[in-house]
Amino acid sequence: MLDWNGKGLSIMEMSHRSDDYVTVAAKAEQDLRDLLSIPSNYKVLFLQGGASQQFAEIPLNLLPENGTADYVETGIWSKKAIEEARRFGNVNVAASAKPYDFLAIPGQNEWQLTPGAAYLHYASNETIGGLQFDWVPQTGDVPLVVDMSSDILSRPIDVSQYGLIYAGAQKNIGPSGLVVVIVREDLLGRARSSCPTMLDYKIAADNGSMYNTPATYSWYLSGLVFEWIKEQGGVAAMEQRNRAKKDRLYGFIDKSDFYTNPISTNARSWMNVPFRLADERLDKAFLAGADARGLLNLKGHRSVGGMRASIYNALGLDAVEALVAYMVEFEKEHS
Amino acid sequence: MLDWNGKGLSIMEMSHRSDDYVTVAAKAEQDLRDLLSIPSNYKVLFLQGGASQQFAEIPLNLLPENGTADYVETGIWSKKAIEEARRFGNVNVAASAKPYDFLAIPGQNEWQLTPGAAYLHYASNETIGGLQFDWVPQTGDVPLVVDMSSDILSRPIDVSQYGLIYAGAQKNIGPSGLVVVIVREDLLGRARSSCPTMLDYKIAADNGSMYNTPATYSWYLSGLVFEWIKEQGGVAAMEQRNRAKKDRLYGFIDKSDFYTNPISTNARSWMNVPFRLADERLDKAFLAGADARGLLNLKGHRSVGGMRASIYNALGLDAVEALVAYMVEFEKEHS
Repeated sequence: MLDWNGKGLSIMEMSHRSDDYVTVAAKAEQDLRDLLSIPSNYKVLFLQGGASQQFAEIPLNLLPENGTADYVETGIWSKKAIEEARRFGNVNVAASAKPYDFLAIPGQNEWQLTPGAAYLHYASNETIGGLQFDWVPQTGDVPLVVDMSSDILSRPIDVSQYGLIYAGAQKNIGPSGLVVVIVREDLLGRARSSCPTMLDYKIAADNGSMYNTPATYSWYLSGLVFEWIKEQGGVAAMEQRNRAKKDRLYGFIDKSDFYTNPISTNARSWMNVPFRLADERLDKAFLAGADARGLLNLKGHRSVGGMRASIYNALGLDAVEALVAYMVEFEKEHS
Repeated sequence: MLDWNGKGLSIMEMSHRSDDYVTVAAKAEQDLRDLLSIPSNYKVLFLQGGASQQFAEIPLNLLPENGTADYVETGIWSKKAIEEARRFGNVNVAASAKPYDFLAIPGQNEWQLTPGAAYLHYASNETIGGLQFDWVPQTGDVPLVVDMSSDILSRPIDVSQYGLIYAGAQKNIGPSGLVVVIVREDLLGRARSSCPTMLDYKIAADNGSMYNTPATYSWYLSGLVFEWIKEQGGVAAMEQRNRAKKDRLYGFIDKSDFYTNPISTNARSWMNVPFRLADERLDKAFLAGADARGLLNLKGHRSVGGMRASIYNALGLDAVEALVAYMVEFEKEHS
């Protein structure tokens, strides 16, 4: 942090145009390309503003003024993306989990796709509801745009199935303040004239994400995470690790009468496991006991209540075992 | 970095909505308010995208579709701001340093201000040309908007003279990827309907810069810098320190026949001191010798050539003395 490679200064202090920093940035990109086998006709961008800024950038870049974009609604994040896109053009909600109380994702046979849509947008994982796609929508020539903020790098994906993948860094990539965009080259250069320069993917791509000073330190730290994932055995190893974690936790919950998870089994998130206690009057005691053991941030989002275990890449199976052990003990004490 | 206040986790790992983080963020804002005596009718925003994104955000928030904004051109940054603003509405270049070859700033008696302009924009310091205002434009009721990216916190300012102050963090504040905006409350709520939500100052203000996850670690580190400046004695102490640095360097250059700085004395930057050697064929040798002594990044921007010493807040007088000592020695060897 204070003295990078014996150079006597921090990465933070280096010019983003210095040879040292350019090498660091390029290595991070290459490691991400290796991890996800990103084809050469895709650009990788390291941008700012989080996924929420992408909610506007996507229509500003990909939705013509008179075109229509299809969106799938499976929770709060995809809903926010829909609301923002509506400010810039026609949006068709091709499918929604709302009729299923956000406990299941409608199969594609139920979707109402727009012929010739500018793109179809969905969120592969919804952090608050705990709803995740275990399949990839098929849209033919219509580019698939996916918010992978909360499950990128958690298991292998086939990048070539997507037109654009974006992910806020703060779950599986690195510090907040960075958003990674992986975009097929033919989708560049379509931005509206009213698109701010900094929000134009082509300008970011043409300048190697350095049209202005990027979030240099966050980019560097993300590169360290990519290195770590490689050392662990890549995304295939992450998949194994994450599968073991979610199988353990859902398996335990399903066998219990004290804890429940209502999500349709084929739509359960590997990253965010919401669950409820049989008696919600015990919620406070559960959280206090968890906190005392260093099992932090288990409170469910205020919009859904209950509990939520977020088990991103960084957590090992040992963390899930510790949680299950506590849940067993708590159940014994309170049932 | 790895264990904040014995909590067993990094600031980077905390939720931005956690009590701990909210306290950290609020303290950073308060310290900045203290340092600059920011009046209570100004909001302080911690945003992303750098000053370049502000170049678009400012007209999207403050320039009505049929209004006109005045801009002053004193170098590359103010020129970029002008180019971006032109994409969103009418821009009047009220004054330009171009007729003075960017070696002097035209006095306000030469400016062509637009009556009823939406705002007047200028850059208080131009990093590449080394041109800095040592006065504040007077625009009556027209809000003054200033890019202070490279000289904020370098000396006291009177915030109440401005409608909006913005500054990319990476010079005098903290790591790149953060931009601080100080905006008078009456200027909020004027964004165009076509302004992306994430670029709307009012939404940022209403959400305490946490409409989505902010650049939490950069915000925290910036707070540490604010603490450090306070410990040094505040911006008055910074002014003293910076004045001593620039007086030493310009004083030496002016006495020398070997080194020159062509900028008009009342427009010389305190932060960026461009200078030339009498014989530019010696430039490479000068830079190599400097590098060998740990005097880094002295090469002038490619657009202007020569040398440039950037002497931001973080540098002490000792660094300038080391540079001058080297310049003396180099001159002896080569003249």
